[in-house]
Amino acid sequence: MTSKTNPGRFFEDYAVGQVIRHAVPRTVGEGERAMYHALYPQRFALSSSDVFALDCGLGCSPLDELVVFHTVFGKTVPDISLNAVANLGYAEGRFLKPVFPGDTLRSESEVIGLKQNSNGKSGVVWVRTTGFNQMDEPVLSYVRWVMVRKADPAAPAPETVIPPLDDAVAAADLVLPVGDAPLAFDSYDFDLAGEPHRASNYAVGEQIDHVDGVTIEEAEHMLATRLWQNTAKVHFDATHREDGKRLIYGGHVISLARALSFNGLANAQCIAAINAGAHANPCFAGDTVRAWSEVLDKAQMTADVTAIRLRLVATRGAAFALRGADGKYLPDVLLDLDYWALMPS
Amino acid sequence: MTSKTNPGRFFEDYAVGQVIRHAVPRTVGEGERAMYHALYPQRFALSSSDVFALDCGLGCSPLDELVVFHTVFGKTVPDISLNAVANLGYAEGRFLKPVFPGDTLRSESEVIGLKQNSNGKSGVVWVRTTGFNQMDEPVLSYVRWVMVRKADPAAPAPETVIPPLDDAVAAADLVLPVGDAPLAFDSYDFDLAGEPHRASNYAVGEQIDHVDGVTIEEAEHMLATRLWQNTAKVHFDATHREDGKRLIYGGHVISLARALSFNGLANAQCIAAINAGAHANPCFAGDTVRAWSEVLDKAQMTADVTAIRLRLVATRGAAFALRGADGKYLPDVLLDLDYWALMPS
Amino acid sequence: MTSKTNPGRFFEDYAVGQVIRHAVPRTVGEGERAMYHALYPQRFALSSSDVFALDCGLGCSPLDELVVFHTVFGKTVPDISLNAVANLGYAEGRFLKPVFPGDTLRSESEVIGLKQNSNGKSGVVWVRTTGFNQMDEPVLSYVRWVMVRKADPAAPAPETVIPPLDDAVAAADLVLPVGDAPLAFDSYDFDLAGEPHRASNYAVGEQIDHVDGVTIEEAEHMLATRLWQNTAKVHFDATHREDGKRLIYGGHVISLARALSFNGLANAQCIAAINAGAHANPCFAGDTVRAWSEVLDKAQMTADVTAIRLRLVATRGAAFALRGADGKYLPDVLLDLDYWALMPS
Repeated sequence: MTSKTNPGRFFEDYAVGQVIRHAVPRTVGEGERAMYHALYPQRFALSSSDVFALDCGLGCSPLDELVVFHTVFGKTVPDISLNAVANLGYAEGRFLKPVFPGDTLRSESEVIGLKQNSNGKSGVVWVRTTGFNQMDEPVLSYVRWVMVRKADPAAPAPETVIPPLDDAVAAADLVLPVGDAPLAFDSYDFDLAGEPHRASNYAVGEQIDHVDGVTIEEAEHMLATRLWQNTAKVHFDATHREDGKRLIYGGHVISLARALSFNGLANAQCIAAINAGAHANPCFAGDTVRAWSEVLDKAQMTADVTAIRLRLVATRGAAFALRGADGKYLPDVLLDLDYWALMPS
Repeated sequence: MTSKTNPGRFFEDYAVGQVIRHAVPRTVGEGERAMYHALYPQRFALSSSDVFALDCGLGCSPLDELVVFHTVFGKTVPDISLNAVANLGYAEGRFLKPVFPGDTLRSESEVIGLKQNSNGKSGVVWVRTTGFNQMDEPVLSYVRWVMVRKADPAAPAPETVIPPLDDAVAAADLVLPVGDAPLAFDSYDFDLAGEPHRASNYAVGEQIDHVDGVTIEEAEHMLATRLWQNTAKVHFDATHREDGKRLIYGGHVISLARALSFNGLANAQCIAAINAGAHANPCFAGDTVRAWSEVLDKAQMTADVTAIRLRLVATRGAAFALRGADGKYLPDVLLDLDYWALMPS
Repeated sequence: MTSKTNPGRFFEDYAVGQVIRHAVPRTVGEGERAMYHALYPQRFALSSSDVFALDCGLGCSPLDELVVFHTVFGKTVPDISLNAVANLGYAEGRFLKPVFPGDTLRSESEVIGLKQNSNGKSGVVWVRTTGFNQMDEPVLSYVRWVMVRKADPAAPAPETVIPPLDDAVAAADLVLPVGDAPLAFDSYDFDLAGEPHRASNYAVGEQIDHVDGVTIEEAEHMLATRLWQNTAKVHFDATHREDGKRLIYGGHVISLARALSFNGLANAQCIAAINAGAHANPCFAGDTVRAWSEVLDKAQMTADVTAIRLRLVATRGAAFALRGADGKYLPDVLLDLDYWALMPS
């Protein structure tokens, strides 16, 4: 045996200010788009049709923002979460530039916070990850924090640095996607988009049951997770856990829920920001996943484009149920995601 | 809960003459071609090789006609068959123009017939669906009729209109695909195509057992059905039926049978028309599907291109068995499709 | 029933010197690349990123050499191994030219050896298969030998011809890939590639446990095998074997093991030659596959490119265990592959 394989980083291997250039750059394109449509019941017109995207100013259809998120995220796994005990949260996620077929993505992360747990065996690592295209332009930036094991419990605790994080991306910080021109919905075709509801038709506090459910198969979540070059063994190796189950990559549930949300939010064409996210309970093959949304906020971006802030919940259970009397997520809740999407005003 | 989700149309929501523009336009390309090859044992040379297609006059390889059919069909589901009790039939399906990678497809349907059932609870809706490319050129037209539930049994019955439909597309109405030039088989390479049999080698009445069988997995039919943005819940949600089974999209069986028919009909390079089709029995994961064909007719199109009319049967059972003594489809028969294909004369 | 379906060739149908042009040509591209990333935990930077490939002189990212191998191999199945009892070995496999998205591949095989078995019921057929691109340039050449049944046991035995085969491709016969320019690693980015280890860091005799395991699902191996248009029924038809199992295409195990080998051999960017290969035991869905490698040899190609000869073993069991006391492969060993890869010197 040699030491050539990657053991992953342990808690004591991180230092605030450290910048990690992640492997492996990836050119994304029509193939990834087709796979995404096969893996999720994805119907948003902007990432489905070049013609629709052209009519919205973007030149051609960008890849779905979650394709970008998963690709950028997947690259961080070997450096950030190979020895993670838990994926604790996301914050300050902003999509900064659309990604088009043929673009090549790579990722970098800066360690921005560290806090050893009181048990001395693990700690929390905060990283700000940025995805870049082949022009070295940032396309996505987000903060993630994970609990990571120490390899050596005797390693000294680092100075605690807890980064200040916004509860949500401020509307003023959202970036309007620019392709050939900035995103515009002034000649938007609601028939082709699938629903007549504009941002002005949604009320803050409104809840939407997205109705449909999808039962997940092992092959599907593994195909998806590999597509993002996320090779964390817990997703692929049925001998890894004692119960023989393969844990489904949390991002698979995000994409599934977002795609299901088309039914009721068909005009929430693209994701502008991820404010927060919690993988409330683990998801396994055989689970039937449903989704519901709640409108949290709205903010007009341009005359015809409005940002809508949404809570998106993936669940194995009933719509609109989120937390128990104890304040904890109900056992059927899989995902609680807070994001901004862009829709016609 | 809000009313923003799509409840689908009920029988009383249709009127003869009504035209429905379906969501969501879709750009199809190399990704969909690769997925199609992964999902079905597809080997027809024309939709596999740019060079072969170039040699046949088409400039580059068109997408398989069934990719076009499924894409156009999938868009109609939310408007036509979300509350359908049964998919009753197809007629007058004609492929009007090849679809190439990069083309964007959308669909429209016109209601051409209505007949309330005597029970007053449902009725039959006939629609003529047309698929268009980004130039608004029709690429496919077909009639489908479905039995749809009424939301309100007390809603008045519409005037009965039963559209006159041809038993089969007349050979004179078949459209020769045109790419850079009209489809031509004058420099056809039978070695590369896989079999030596020309149209003149097939006799009307001849039956062909396609020999091979494919056992279907849940993940496969769901990947396929999602790829066409067909989101009918019966295909995806294992909690939807009492028996916990997911019904396989009928089009998956069509594609599987057509791909299997390569073995014996390798030169039936493309589908020109769908004359009729019946999904004789439901198909579920675990079924092993086989196929057989019968030559129904032949019609010369050009000196080197001949249309061959074929019955294509998908079955879990023995070849050439179709109906019982009672005239009904045998329980193992899944599909009975009547179509025109084009092959070297 | 007619004789139009392909019964496959039997032992007595082969003659030394015979050249078989295989059906069906196939244009490969971005779709196949995306599918490959979804099917295998593939992370080699050269076949992942256009930018990385450009920096290595190739202009854009070539398709993984195993995509080429499977595509070329798949075409031979209907002519060579439809009636094969066993796939006995590979030799003298050389990748001669990179394959880029948009290239069209076809295959030819020449029968170079024949030896009837003493039982008179079967025999061994050696073929040299060549894959060509659309310019008729050879992209891959390899020898494979299979044991094939006789249709008529009374058919006379052919003259025995056993072709002389090299134990391994000589380093001098390896071909450096040429895109815009010959492959060069002089501006190689080890961070982006994923590991710091150069060829000079590997010692002959060194063994590497690639650590990760992947549990295989039926849907995955069938998607993969169909993608290569390999339609051998044993992979797809659960009714074919008495035990109801579908045998996994050996090439699926090759790709899986090669992708797993990234962890420890991330800089073995491309395969230059396949020296030998044995599918030691059959693989079935549910198996959890792991991989280990052993460095067999090294040979400098240019100042910055070195060929490394590797034994790659796929196993359901422990790393580094290969053969029992009887010299036979252990029951958990699935693949023993001997190949040359190219890495920074």
